[in-house]
Amino acid sequence: MSIFRGLSAFPITPADPDGRIRPDDLGVLLERLVAAKVDSVGLLGSTGSYMYLAREERKRAVAAAAEVVRGRTPLIVGTGALRTDDAIRLAQDAEAAGADGLLVAPVSYTPLRDEEVFQNFRAVAGATGLPVCIYNNPTTTHFTFSDALIARLAAVPRIEAVKNPGLPAAEIGPKHEALAALVPAEFAVGYSGDWNASACLLAGGVAWYSVVGGILPEPTMKLAHAALAGDRAEVARLEAVFAPMWDIFKRASSFRAVHVIAGLLGLATVTPPRPILPPTPEEIAELERALERLAKV
Amino acid sequence: MSIFRGLSAFPITPADPDGRIRPDDLGVLLERLVAAKVDSVGLLGSTGSYMYLAREERKRAVAAAAEVVRGRTPLIVGTGALRTDDAIRLAQDAEAAGADGLLVAPVSYTPLRDEEVFQNFRAVAGATGLPVCIYNNPTTTHFTFSDALIARLAAVPRIEAVKNPGLPAAEIGPKHEALAALVPAEFAVGYSGDWNASACLLAGGVAWYSVVGGILPEPTMKLAHAALAGDRAEVARLEAVFAPMWDIFKRASSFRAVHVIAGLLGLATVTPPRPILPPTPEEIAELERALERLAKV
Repeated sequence: MSIFRGLSAFPITPADPDGRIRPDDLGVLLERLVAAKVDSVGLLGSTGSYMYLAREERKRAVAAAAEVVRGRTPLIVGTGALRTDDAIRLAQDAEAAGADGLLVAPVSYTPLRDEEVFQNFRAVAGATGLPVCIYNNPTTTHFTFSDALIARLAAVPRIEAVKNPGLPAAEIGPKHEALAALVPAEFAVGYSGDWNASACLLAGGVAWYSVVGGILPEPTMKLAHAALAGDRAEVARLEAVFAPMWDIFKRASSFRAVHVIAGLLGLATVTPPRPILPPTPEEIAELERALERLAKV
Repeated sequence: MSIFRGLSAFPITPADPDGRIRPDDLGVLLERLVAAKVDSVGLLGSTGSYMYLAREERKRAVAAAAEVVRGRTPLIVGTGALRTDDAIRLAQDAEAAGADGLLVAPVSYTPLRDEEVFQNFRAVAGATGLPVCIYNNPTTTHFTFSDALIARLAAVPRIEAVKNPGLPAAEIGPKHEALAALVPAEFAVGYSGDWNASACLLAGGVAWYSVVGGILPEPTMKLAHAALAGDRAEVARLEAVFAPMWDIFKRASSFRAVHVIAGLLGLATVTPPRPILPPTPEEIAELERALERLAKV
């Protein structure tokens, strides 16, 4: 069974203002994920601030997570970097520290060409024995994969999945079908973008790479598995409860929001890495209301 | 006289494939810029791969450049980073190593809010005694400054200039006027984007932050100073000669192109940092033709 299926829950990475991670706080978050039986943990994703943490800290985070999780759920680790050689080293670090799979983003500063992204992925996928998921998130990496490039990458050994940005119900069907037609049946097409995720799973996506799942795993598991089971009535019921959370996620960004939620739940008092600031007081009040509503799922 | 005026020439930063800079090759490029009497050197800009080089290498590059330039032309150094604390350290490193001014970009992964960018700039501008130019380049930093935010930053001590993306002649006039009306008269509004730069200078811009100027300083000085002097006939004559270079810059990116030109001119054999690849053979042939044409300026 592929590790790139079901609900992949992305925790924040608790860290000091100077970027030194706090393994104990990370452990608290991870225990919640294991207890909720999420299908995998997505460590050091965009939610986990991977691009803001130094190599040593990223290594420490993987080692701490592997120690807490102890094989109870697969550990997928984000190892993207601007330079290919750094991306290779980070992948090897993650493998040595106990990762079960890699999530690799084509992080860019100078806009990248398709061939550059292809060569980068081939080099990283060849550097470890771990399965790789393509991290397709144009909002943060500023690279947009064509279906043709994903299909080309799907033929590279160990590249087994893609995490695509989610689309609304009205658009996802044909888009998912078009990609599915180009890749092998066992290639796992999953989605991120929490507010569109259930629609993407109903349309055939096999994984939800979830920000909210990293901090509120229980209600998120219910929504993910209702959608994976095709239970549209239950999905509709749950989406109505999640709706205020999606609203504030869109406005304040889910990244800023989940840092606040960790504090509101008393799990960890962490601020995002500067220059990122906490949401405004009005946004935090809105978050509190959305959180209250979700407590009743 | 502000250091943020006239032609600021941005050299590449020659480096090994593993990211270790080559001070001797850098020196060769810088001597050409000094000999051509460029108005400033823009070290470690996007053209100079700053985001792809480690802190130690960036420090070495500034020290090497300061040693070569020896005050003959102002040395403006790009010190942007994803984290505010890193940006502060890089600015302090640059000051200690001999920089005369800083070029600070709001580098982003998680999309940034205006207040975050403001706080980041205030922190960096307060960390050294050097004047700061705001590096506004949405294509690479993925943050777009409003005129209002630039005006707010212009009131912060030591923030003395902006490097805005250039616009075509038909659009730049009103855009330049609108910003100029919001900032103090001594605040230096300059432009990048080589193929629109002369139009921006004719419209009132006081600086051209130039990629081509970093590798072909002599013809670029002619174009820059014809435009600064308002000599439209000479600008039109020179733009016709530069036109094939702009075409290939747009298609292959000026960043990839100038790495090739350094080799074609026998100045330095360097490849961009992976994942960036050299242009295609067809693009290189086109570059050679554009270069030949510019030899006749």
